Amino acid sequence: MNTLDTALVVGVGLIGGSLAGALKAAGVAKQVVGLDADAAAAATALQLGLVDSVIDTLDTLDALPAQVDLALVCTSSEQIAAQVAALAPKATLVMDVGSVKAPIITALEQDFGGVPPNFIPCHPISGSEQSGPAAAQADLFQGAVTVISSPHPEGDADDLIAAAAQIWEAAGAQVLYLSPAAHDEMLAVTSHLPHLLAFAYMQQVDEGLLPYTGGGFRDFTRIAAANPQLWWRILSMNRKQVVAAAEVFNQHLQILTQALAADDAEAGLAALQAAADLRQKL
Amino acid sequence: MNTLDTALVVGVGLIGGSLAGALKAAGVAKQVVGLDADAAAAATALQLGLVDSVIDTLDTLDALPAQVDLALVCTSSEQIAAQVAALAPKATLVMDVGSVKAPIITALEQDFGGVPPNFIPCHPISGSEQSGPAAAQADLFQGAVTVISSPHPEGDADDLIAAAAQIWEAAGAQVLYLSPAAHDEMLAVTSHLPHLLAFAYMQQVDEGLLPYTGGGFRDFTRIAAANPQLWWRILSMNRKQVVAAAEVFNQHLQILTQALAADDAEAGLAALQAAADLRQKL
Repeated sequence: MNTLDTALVVGVGLIGGSLAGALKAAGVAKQVVGLDADAAAAATALQLGLVDSVIDTLDTLDALPAQVDLALVCTSSEQIAAQVAALAPKATLVMDVGSVKAPIITALEQDFGGVPPNFIPCHPISGSEQSGPAAAQADLFQGAVTVISSPHPEGDADDLIAAAAQIWEAAGAQVLYLSPAAHDEMLAVTSHLPHLLAFAYMQQVDEGLLPYTGGGFRDFTRIAAANPQLWWRILSMNRKQVVAAAEVFNQHLQILTQALAADDAEAGLAALQAAADLRQKL
Repeated sequence: MNTLDTALVVGVGLIGGSLAGALKAAGVAKQVVGLDADAAAAATALQLGLVDSVIDTLDTLDALPAQVDLALVCTSSEQIAAQVAALAPKATLVMDVGSVKAPIITALEQDFGGVPPNFIPCHPISGSEQSGPAAAQADLFQGAVTVISSPHPEGDADDLIAAAAQIWEAAGAQVLYLSPAAHDEMLAVTSHLPHLLAFAYMQQVDEGLLPYTGGGFRDFTRIAAANPQLWWRILSMNRKQVVAAAEVFNQHLQILTQALAADDAEAGLAALQAAADLRQKL
């Protein structure tokens, strides 16, 4: 991969800050510029060396080189479409890191005159319950999977997709490919539903129970400590798929609870064994 | 605490092996003897230095000193009552580590002529999805909580309870006290229900989804890799409390799913915020 001149990272929180740091560590771009509406976050990212310089608003894009090689939109999912539309004319390649994909495509089509041909939607499946640039780690994507969800007709964006894949691989990620719809359906099960379940489970836990918890509880509920605004938006944008996944979950829970209530060891053990066997493949 | 002469650990798996190792490391007993129906597990525990010697069966208890100072029953919950009854006449203090408490008391009362006055029921809230002595760690209880659930009338067993607490503290644990019924009701929520939910959730995951998972999925489902036989027994023995906890969970999940389906951001965000606030207190 040729070294890029300038990469712009919009939103230097946990993911954007980590990605900026990873691009710098891997020498992907000569210059990594950070942009964040939160001046304190931008200052922290600069201070931690995640970015080389910072700008305040998209309006100051004019201060940048006429064309940036790469614009990475790492803001909340509901802001992404507008920012992609604004950045596309100023960048060779635009990528995002949103946790939902189809609604961003739809918003671009319906509200912003179409999907820019140089926009390659991406989703790195990594992160933590923490947020902000202080929690960023340049090695966050090492060993993680990034899904590229191209909405472009087959063949139309091969070079850009290959460039995007190279950038993620330079950051340490393995790249997999899913259509936007398949991405949203699969991630509803593997990521959004576990968050919904952990949030729902915490409703019946009160502070007096916390001393009587161990490592199992700690791990099971870690994702319930995630940013509520961020996660409500993700769940809401992928509402239809998440509600469908919750209904499937509910059926399985009812079957297992009924096996327990009836002391049906055969059915119960078979379900537990299947779960353990599959989980051990991870 | 005076050093004991002999501690007998029955069942040298993950918990028993770790506890044996912790007793040796803390100098609680001059001699730690392991007993396991699985000869390979006993040999592994001996080889790893978790115990000083091993015996084959409870029948060979006659080879031990006339009276052991401490007998620790670290076998599956459904075996504990019989083993406690068999060991009580041979030991000064008998403790178990079962994940459920009231059913063991009931079994002793109904099937074994009563609760031995020298039996102090205990539950260390620690462990992992692994099992067997090869996974044992002498520091497994450092920073963990152990619940002592005495069924004895108040005042009757104070010295034995104090001795039990000292042993757990020597192993690094913090000791808390709950009645057997309160223990089973609280642990149904903090431990047994999360296992049930993780096992139920895994029913809708297939192998093709595993590549599209990240750290959130990994932590949320870790407990679904636990030993199925062991966990079906725990769930089954605490059936009534676990089914009740699952019903409460189901109500919260329905409320949250309905808020999502209706795009009721106010209700949804409030629930997520409450969950995150509480989880961050851990």
